[in-house]
Formats: sequence, C-alpha cells, structure tokens
Amino acid sequence: MIIPGNTKSSHLNITEHVKAWAEKGTVPIVLGGDHSVSLPELRAISAVHGPLSLIHFDAHGDTWDEYWGEKYTHGTPFRRAIEEGLIDPYRSIQIGMRGTVYHPDDIEEARTLGLQVITADEVREIGLPETMQQVCQRVGQSKVFLTFDIDFLDPVYAPGTGTPEIAGFSSTEAQYMLRKLAGLQFVGFDLVEVLPALDPSEVTALTAATVVFEFLSLLAVAKRDGGQQ
Amino acid sequence: MIIPGNTKSSHLNITEHVKAWAEKGTVPIVLGGDHSVSLPELRAISAVHGPLSLIHFDAHGDTWDEYWGEKYTHGTPFRRAIEEGLIDPYRSIQIGMRGTVYHPDDIEEARTLGLQVITADEVREIGLPETMQQVCQRVGQSKVFLTFDIDFLDPVYAPGTGTPEIAGFSSTEAQYMLRKLAGLQFVGFDLVEVLPALDPSEVTALTAATVVFEFLSLLAVAKRDGGQQ
Amino acid sequence: MIIPGNTKSSHLNITEHVKAWAEKGTVPIVLGGDHSVSLPELRAISAVHGPLSLIHFDAHGDTWDEYWGEKYTHGTPFRRAIEEGLIDPYRSIQIGMRGTVYHPDDIEEARTLGLQVITADEVREIGLPETMQQVCQRVGQSKVFLTFDIDFLDPVYAPGTGTPEIAGFSSTEAQYMLRKLAGLQFVGFDLVEVLPALDPSEVTALTAATVVFEFLSLLAVAKRDGGQQ
Amino acid sequence: MIIPGNTKSSHLNITEHVKAWAEKGTVPIVLGGDHSVSLPELRAISAVHGPLSLIHFDAHGDTWDEYWGEKYTHGTPFRRAIEEGLIDPYRSIQIGMRGTVYHPDDIEEARTLGLQVITADEVREIGLPETMQQVCQRVGQSKVFLTFDIDFLDPVYAPGTGTPEIAGFSSTEAQYMLRKLAGLQFVGFDLVEVLPALDPSEVTALTAATVVFEFLSLLAVAKRDGGQQ
Amino acid sequence: MIIPGNTKSSHLNITEHVKAWAEKGTVPIVLGGDHSVSLPELRAISAVHGPLSLIHFDAHGDTWDEYWGEKYTHGTPFRRAIEEGLIDPYRSIQIGMRGTVYHPDDIEEARTLGLQVITADEVREIGLPETMQQVCQRVGQSKVFLTFDIDFLDPVYAPGTGTPEIAGFSSTEAQYMLRKLAGLQFVGFDLVEVLPALDPSEVTALTAATVVFEFLSLLAVAKRDGGQQ
Amino acid sequence: MIIPGNTKSSHLNITEHVKAWAEKGTVPIVLGGDHSVSLPELRAISAVHGPLSLIHFDAHGDTWDEYWGEKYTHGTPFRRAIEEGLIDPYRSIQIGMRGTVYHPDDIEEARTLGLQVITADEVREIGLPETMQQVCQRVGQSKVFLTFDIDFLDPVYAPGTGTPEIAGFSSTEAQYMLRKLAGLQFVGFDLVEVLPALDPSEVTALTAATVVFEFLSLLAVAKRDGGQQ
Repeated sequence: MIIPGNTKSSHLNITEHVKAWAEKGTVPIVLGGDHSVSLPELRAISAVHGPLSLIHFDAHGDTWDEYWGEKYTHGTPFRRAIEEGLIDPYRSIQIGMRGTVYHPDDIEEARTLGLQVITADEVREIGLPETMQQVCQRVGQSKVFLTFDIDFLDPVYAPGTGTPEIAGFSSTEAQYMLRKLAGLQFVGFDLVEVLPALDPSEVTALTAATVVFEFLSLLAVAKRDGGQQ
Repeated sequence: MIIPGNTKSSHLNITEHVKAWAEKGTVPIVLGGDHSVSLPELRAISAVHGPLSLIHFDAHGDTWDEYWGEKYTHGTPFRRAIEEGLIDPYRSIQIGMRGTVYHPDDIEEARTLGLQVITADEVREIGLPETMQQVCQRVGQSKVFLTFDIDFLDPVYAPGTGTPEIAGFSSTEAQYMLRKLAGLQFVGFDLVEVLPALDPSEVTALTAATVVFEFLSLLAVAKRDGGQQ
Repeated sequence: MIIPGNTKSSHLNITEHVKAWAEKGTVPIVLGGDHSVSLPELRAISAVHGPLSLIHFDAHGDTWDEYWGEKYTHGTPFRRAIEEGLIDPYRSIQIGMRGTVYHPDDIEEARTLGLQVITADEVREIGLPETMQQVCQRVGQSKVFLTFDIDFLDPVYAPGTGTPEIAGFSSTEAQYMLRKLAGLQFVGFDLVEVLPALDPSEVTALTAATVVFEFLSLLAVAKRDGGQQ
Repeated sequence: MIIPGNTKSSHLNITEHVKAWAEKGTVPIVLGGDHSVSLPELRAISAVHGPLSLIHFDAHGDTWDEYWGEKYTHGTPFRRAIEEGLIDPYRSIQIGMRGTVYHPDDIEEARTLGLQVITADEVREIGLPETMQQVCQRVGQSKVFLTFDIDFLDPVYAPGTGTPEIAGFSSTEAQYMLRKLAGLQFVGFDLVEVLPALDPSEVTALTAATVVFEFLSLLAVAKRDGGQQ
Repeated sequence: MIIPGNTKSSHLNITEHVKAWAEKGTVPIVLGGDHSVSLPELRAISAVHGPLSLIHFDAHGDTWDEYWGEKYTHGTPFRRAIEEGLIDPYRSIQIGMRGTVYHPDDIEEARTLGLQVITADEVREIGLPETMQQVCQRVGQSKVFLTFDIDFLDPVYAPGTGTPEIAGFSSTEAQYMLRKLAGLQFVGFDLVEVLPALDPSEVTALTAATVVFEFLSLLAVAKRDGGQQ
Repeated sequence: MIIPGNTKSSHLNITEHVKAWAEKGTVPIVLGGDHSVSLPELRAISAVHGPLSLIHFDAHGDTWDEYWGEKYTHGTPFRRAIEEGLIDPYRSIQIGMRGTVYHPDDIEEARTLGLQVITADEVREIGLPETMQQVCQRVGQSKVFLTFDIDFLDPVYAPGTGTPEIAGFSSTEAQYMLRKLAGLQFVGFDLVEVLPALDPSEVTALTAATVVFEFLSLLAVAKRDGGQQ
C-alpha cells in the first residue's frame, strides 16, 4: 500500500512494484509526484539491470546533499542514487538547469559528482542538435533511465508544477529533443512534478501526457526497428 | 525550523514554539495546515495548563486509530491527544460530523473514548441555540482549546480544502455558533485545513480569516468584561 | 457506439444499453449529459416495467413541445415521454420549477398534461416536509424513475451547468428531500446537466457525486429492509 | 464622454446622461461600477423629482465623511447625498450592514444623519417579513431610489466584488425582499460593485442580472396594476 | 434561425445567410464554432464565385470520410467540400498538421484527394518564408477561402479549444504567415474552434480576435492598393 | 499616504518617497501599478541626478498627449517627462512597440519628440543582439532609468495585464535582453502593469518577479565589478 506523507514507506512500496515490472522485462513508466520518486525507481531497475545511465531533463539538478535538513527529498534523489551506486555518473547527463535559486556551486558540485551538465544557457549557446548529440554520445548503448521533470519546460507550457523557472524550453523543443533519443536502450522512464491544482487551463496535463506519448513512440520505433524493447 | 514532509520534526517544532507562547500567558492561534497540527499544539498548551477541554467544529471526528497505516495523521490527532492525556474527553465535545466516508462505528467509537458528539444531522434536529448551550455546558469554566476545521462549513463556503463534505454549515451559522462561546476560558485556538490552490474565488480564505477575527473578538470581549485573557 | 452530436443515434444507443441492464433486474443509474437522455432511458425501462411514475427535481419542467424548432431536446423529454406512454403523468410529480425564462403558461401546460407541479415558491410556502409527503403520496408504491437535474440546486452549489437559475435549493435541502424517498420502488435514476468546464472549484462535481451516493443509499436501505431492489 | 480614473469628470457625465433619461419620464437603471456612481445619479434624478427616499441594500453604510482623505469615493456617497439635499434621510432606510471593518460608531453616525438602519444581525432577529414591512412603511408613497450593492449578498453568491463580507444574505432571501417592494413609487435604481475579474464561475454576474430582472418585474407589475411607471 | 444541435438545419441556415452576403460582393467572415461550419460557408461562397482555392491552417486535416460514423462533422468538412466540387484541391493547401491522433495514412489520404499538405514538421524544416511562398504559389490569383482553426496555434496560445495538440505555432509565427498572404484574392474567411469555457486567462479570445484583425488588414491593404475587395 | 483613485495625490506621494530613497544613494525599484507611476518616479530621481536616459520595454510607447481627455494617465507619462525635462529623449530609447490600437502616427510622433524607437517588427528584423547593441550605444554611460511594462512580453507569458498585445516577446528573450544591459549606470527601475486578478496560473507574477531579480542581478554584477551602484 502506498502511504501518503510517509517517505520511507512510499519509497519501499514504489521499489517493490517497479522491480516486479522490471523483472518481467517491461520498461516501467512512472508518473509523479515529486522528484523523490526517481530514487526508489532507480533502486528497483538497477537491481535488475545493474548501474544505469541517467538522462535527466529538468530546471534543477536535484543533487543536493540535504534539503530542509532531510536526506530523502525532491532536491536530493540523484546524489543518493550515485552514493548507492544505482547510476553511473560518468555515463549520465543533465540538461536544462537554470533559475534563481541555486547555490553558486550547485552546477560545479554536480560535475564533481561525475555528472555531465548542460545548463539552459549552454543549450541556447550550442543549439539543440549539438546538445542532443552530446546526450547520445554520453550514454551510448548503455542501459538508460530517462527522467523528465515537467519544469524543464517554460512555465507557460507547464504552470502546474511546484518550482517553475522562467526562460525554459517550449514543448516543440522538448519534442525535438526526445525524438533525437531514438535508438537508445531505455530500461525506465518517469515524468514528474505535475501539480494539477495549479493547472487551470490543463495545458500542463496535456503536455505531460504528450511527453509520455513521445517516450512510448521511442519504444514503438525501437520495436519496429528490431530493438530489444 | 519547520521541515515540510517530515511529520515528526514538524510536530517537535510546533510544540516548541507554541509552548514558548503559552508560557508567556498568551493564547496561541495557529493557522493550518492539515489537522495533525492540533496534536503538537495540544502537547504544548497542556504542558502549561494541564489537561484541556476541546471544542471541535469539523465534518470529521479525526479520532481514528490509524490512517493509511500511520498513527500520526490528520485523521488521528484527537485519539492520540486522549491517549496522551492532553485533553479530558469528558469535558470535550465535537460538532458537525457528517458525510459519506465514515466507518459505521466512527461516531460510536468517539463516544466510547468519552467525547460528546453532536452530528450535523443532530444539530439540524435540535437547532443551533440548543447545540451551543450543550457545548457551553460541556466545557463549563475549564480551560478550553478550540479547533475549527474549515470543512465544518459547506463546500460552497470553503471549496479550498482537502476533504469537503456537502450539506455543511453556512458562514452565518458558524458566526452565530462562535459568538455563543463568549465567556469561556480559552487557552488556544487553531483554524485548519485551508488549501489555497483549490480556492479560485478566494472565498475560503475570506471566510477562514473572518473565523479567526471572530475568535479574536471573543478574546477582546473577555478582556473588556474583565476576563482573564 | 455512442455518437456525439447525433441525437437519434445517441438515443438508440442509450435505450439499447439501459434496457439490457434493466432486463437483468438492476436499477440503471445514468450520469448526464443534457436532459434529453432521460427519454431514451425511460423508453428502455418502461419496456421492461411498463409505464412509470416520475419524480423530477429541476428548475425547469422540460415539457415544451419544441425547442429551437426541434422535438427531441433537453427542453422536451417529458412531454415526449407522456406522448409515448412511458410515464403515467397522474402518478408523476415535478419539484423546484422557478426562474426567468418561462412562458407564462409553462407551469399550467405541464399540469394540463396531467403532471403535479410544486414550484420553488410553493416549496418555500408549504415547507420541505409537506412537499416530500405530497411526492410520496403521488407515486405511492408504483414503479418510480427519479430524475435529478443539477440545476434544481442553487447556482452556488452547482455553477457547472448550462441554465442556472438563482434562488434554488441548497445541498442540505436536497439531501433532506432525497432521504424522505426511502421506501419507494425505484426502477431507474439519472443525474443530469453537469458541465465540468464551468465548475472551477469542482463543487458541482462533488455535489453531484454525493446526490448519486444518496440514491445508492436509498437502494441499500431498501435491500437491508427487505425491499425488492 | 466617461473618463475612467477621473472622478469629477465621470460624475459630471453620469449626471448629465441620467438626467436626460429621467426628464423623459423613464426610470433610469445604472449598472456599476463602484458605489460612488450613486451620487451623480441621485443628483440627476432629484433634479427632476425633488429630494428622494432611499432604499439601500448593502453590507456597508457608505456614509463616511472621508475615505483615504477623499470626499468623493465609494465609502461616502450617501453622506454627500444628504448634505446636498438629494435624499431625505427621514424617509430613507439601509438594510444589511455587517462585517469586520466598521468604526465602532459607523452605524450610530448614520442614524445621527437621520437614516433608519437595520443591520444584518437585526434582520436575522426580526425576520425578513418584519424587515420589509419597516422598509415599506419608512418610504411610503414617496419617490424612491433603490440602490443594491451586490455585497449585500453573502460572498458565495457574489464573490466578484471588492469588499465582500461573510454571513450575508442568500439570493433567495434577496429575491423575497425585492418582491415585497411591489407598489412603491420607484424613480431610479442601480446595481453596483460587480467585479467580473473575481468571478471565475460567473455566479455574481448571473445573480446581479437576476436582481435587475426582479427590479424590472416590479416596474412591469406596477404598469400592469395601473401604477404610474 | 440557427438551431443548435441539429447539424442539417444549422448548415442550411449558414449557407443561406453567407450566400446573401457573398452575393452583395462582401467577403464573409464567420467565427466558429466547430470546423463543420466551413462546409456550408463553402457551399454559399462557391455558389457565387465557383470552385474555390482553400488555404487551411490547422493541426488536423479534417478530411476524414466519417467521424463516429457520421458524414457531416468537424473532422470531415474538406472531403465533403471536394466531393461536392466546392473547392479545387489542386489549388488548395493545408498547413500545420501534427499530433498524436492521426491514422497513419491521414496525410497521404489528403494528398490522394489532390490537396497539398505541409505538416508542422515540414514547416519547421523548410522555414516560414519558404512555406508561405509555396502557399502563395499554390493558390496564385484564384479566388481563395481562408480557414483558420485556432488549434493551428500551440495550446499555450489557444488553450480554449476542443482538440489541442502540443508543439504548435506561436502567435508571432501566425501573424508572420498571415501577412505573407497580402495580394491574394480572398472571397471568404473563417476562424473556428474557439471554446471560451476552457479559456480562463482569455488569451485564446485575444489571439483569435487579433487573427481576425490581421485578415481585415489584408482586405484593407488590398483596397488601399487598388485590389478588387 | 497613497490615495487610491486620486492621481494627483498619489503622484505627490510617490515622488516624495522615491526622492527620499534616491537622495540616500540607493537605486529605487518600484512595482506598479499602471504606467502613470513612472512620471512621479522620474520627477523624484531626476531631482537628484538631473535629466535621465530612459530605456523603455513595452508594447506601447505611452507618449500620447492625452488619453480620454486626461493629461496624466498610463498612456502619457513619457511625453510629460520630456516636457518637464526629466528625461533626455536623445539619449533615450523604446523597444517592442506593436499591436492593433495605434494611431498611424504614434511611432512617428515619438520619434519627433526625440526618442529612438525600435518596434517589435524591427527587433525581429535586426535580431536581439543588434537591438541591444543599439540600446547600449544610445544611453552610453549616462544615468539610466529602466522601465519595464510587463506587456512587452507576449500575453502567454503575462496574461495578467490590462492591454495585452499578441506576438510579443518570450521570457527567454527578455532575460537575454536584460542581461545585455550589464555595465550601464542605473539610477532607477520600475516594473509595471501587473494585474493579479487576470493571472489565474500566476505565471505573470512569477515572470515579473524574475524580471526584478534580473535587474537586481545587474546591480549585483556592477557592485562586484567595482561599479558605482
């Protein structure tokens, strides 16, 4: 049973269910929920497939050591995942970091952990095609977990989220980037941080659903082309 | 520091702050937040004043033993408060219980714990004046903690809340009932379960603020009339 | 298959499905949708049970002969139902009619068709208990179809509807009235005219769901008390 | 031309237009707008008909001497109207005053000016029929201006307004009260303080429109019954 | 009279009115409403001017043979228009098709009917200037009907519509494209699929109104430059 | 005291307060409110620093002589500022003008007053880098007042404003442009025309706050680099 408000029990439940799916050879798709859910998913999937590559679209790196004095929050999952050996930071990459709330060293710290980081400003500088080429090169043919925080998008495309940051990406750009991931070896995916109560026109829900559809299309293309999904 | 998402730390913080205020002789007023906040408040205030009487306006009794397998949630604070000796159930009273989600025995269980319960149906039957007379008689001149869950009101007066129940009370009725509490010995108050994201017209916020104003007026009247607040 | 926008096909589909349920001895519950859906439901249920009594809560009588030149619309279902012999007007009753848009003779015409009509003003005059006594007396132990148009309620309880009329009934009043129907022989029910796009605080949805819950409770009570549902 | 943001020019324009209508024997109906618009209307209509009786439904008396240091605002029109001799306070009456923002002497000051005041609490005490009898007795067969501030209603019926006060009247109650005014000699009417931007479900607009409809019905009834409108 | 809910009568009415305007030499402008309204408009205008060229901005081609088993819906108008000889597909063009709901052959089928189609992906590839050059070349100096479905725009610019598709065009892009149509021989225009109930910030209404303004400007420019409008 | 609704008193109050801050050597930051507030701010700051350069991001030039017959409105502040010698038009520049409501000569008139104007269309033509180079060149090392009307942005980024114009700039573009202003000698800033009641998803508030953050960052960068702020 999922227990709202109890992080530990919730994480145990998520790991248990996701692992059951992963063991049957499926590619688990999880809809969040705050970004802390990625940690128990990674525990489940790496238990089946070994340490994973991470492709991480987000406005924030979520690699803090603590948040409000807590170790297991939506600001810390990927540091925990590295510490627990669930992901291999040297085959992992974060795209889209930006905004006003960073500690000056946030980006540097993530790099010190081994992650490659392409900030929103750097994406603008090098362009989308070069960005995606670097993403594909980073993960190669390793087993990949894709995590998409809806606040990667600009708040006009996703007002329904908890920590929006202006000057984000459009849904057209996100769609372009996702389609460039065709051919990778995905073993898991989550779409997180959708908050319906702040979504009066329901555009966040629409966009989030279509991001999932694009991921499903990547799996379908892989199947059609003889991939192993 | 208040730590969102960690019930235990949050409760410790609330108790510490509220106790500091109560020790200075003030009447703490707390705005919630889910109803679990009442428990640490009661710990703080009973530490100063001894076991308290409780006047509890709500659609739900919040006296379950567990909720989603957890002992400390917004469905359980008053059973915990009785177990911990923070309130004296035999001088305490709950008003307004109604709705679709009760276990058949919920009301009976609360009565077994020693509480007096006047359900919404019973309030309609005996009328507001008789209801309030019973409330005042129950608590007498003991030290009283007043807890007002905004879902005591009908959802049209308070759409911005987590577990609305139709067929509730109007703000006119609530105002009448609160004014009948003049002359009681209040030592604490909270107004809980306001959820701004579900309050598009802001009527919940307006009503909640006015409920607090009515409580402040009770204190002002007591002061004017030589009461001990 | 239900075909949106084609009244005739939609009605055929509704009749077919509802009839299948009614034939199995269940009490069909339909959630609308504009009030025209009651007609195909009545065709289905009267095919199984014979001409029915109708209890009709609504701000409007829906007994026009035509609406915008059309015979089958949400303003005409109950005249059609009488013409087709699906309901027996002399054992049927309408409650709650009010508002600004009536032809001066609307109420009189409904009475000429054989229906008993208690307008909102008349309900206020004679009171809820007397109103419900008349309802129960009218239908007696005949087989009853209950239709509840959400605009029976005041617009503050049901803003999400197409033709709201101020000065309607509260959810507390509606709940009282529904509970007085215990013991009747229900063979069908619908709750119609809920329009989610005009329901920003979702109070219409909540209230509508609870009205259905109250109807289910009537069936449950009948079962417990040895009734034939 | 109406000049937004310039009180003086706007008032001159309103007076000019309303006077032109009143001179032709019509009963001007004005939709506001903040309550300051009543003053230039009263100037226009009293110029044609002499000092008027005022029936004033509102949560606030609007008889301050100044508001934010200004003499001509939505908090002061009726003191100005008395000073300018536009209304006869001894044949005028205010109904519905309530709320948290009054100076302790507000009600008393209005009475000192000659007005009769029935507060919301007093209406609840004496009941609607007695209230309306006192209103009709107060104005008798004098020429009457009716001003209806939408915040007379409870905020759930009229969230779209600038200074809502809880514990107000329902639309059913307002409709009842307005209908008791049949037979009076109306020479003008306004419905003020509707604020569409704070009216997400549009219930304020609906209710306001129906209040105007009720006033039109009073004129129609007077015409039918041989009155002089 | 327009009859809501009866497709056939509504279409007859639209054709009758639009034809009357077209016969007087005006350029009819129609605001929809679902896209099925284009068919009766095209019947009217082609009756006056002969078979027309079509410029069609939309996320969907609307050239299905049937939708929910129906021949006359918002998914089928342009196949009907070709069958009825109202438009000449070989001088017609569709721009902006995209999204998740197509049958794999949708685009190909439209091309088989004779239409030129530039999908959203193709617009991105060849760029806006080249796209508009192809549009102008396609229709040349023939008589043109311009139909603009608001869902051509990205949902953030037009949330108030029935079948939004992400990754659409911005209002800046739409404005650019419309201005490149100066000099064409327009004989009719419609702007369709605006749905106010899903437009909480009213940006859809604003954008739609400005699209119409841009079309009016095209007519004004043509007049100024001695064109025949 | 600020007096709502009295332009003259409000302007006197603004000038008094802003001047007090400017005299202490701070860079006043004002959040509006309609654009008329810039005039009293400019009076205050130029009293301390002499005639200023103006950088003005907006959809509208606000240099009319009158608006609704009034001299002091949100459509006229910068003509007044030039007339009063508060700004030096020959070192001032406006960026982003566009939309449907201009008098044909609006832009030309602004240029006649001495201002440089780069319309939205011209920004699109010459590109953002060239635009910002011209801005910096225009003001050089003179003392600069920066005024940012939120309707410079496209309505999807700022629906909460009084006169939105489609085809505006994105928050990404605005952020880029603001960052190119590093190194200028700022003596004042305002962010105006935010209207919370029309901002259901709160994206306008978020964007406006971040624009202010970007300006604060410019001051911080100047301080770090040894500038005089």
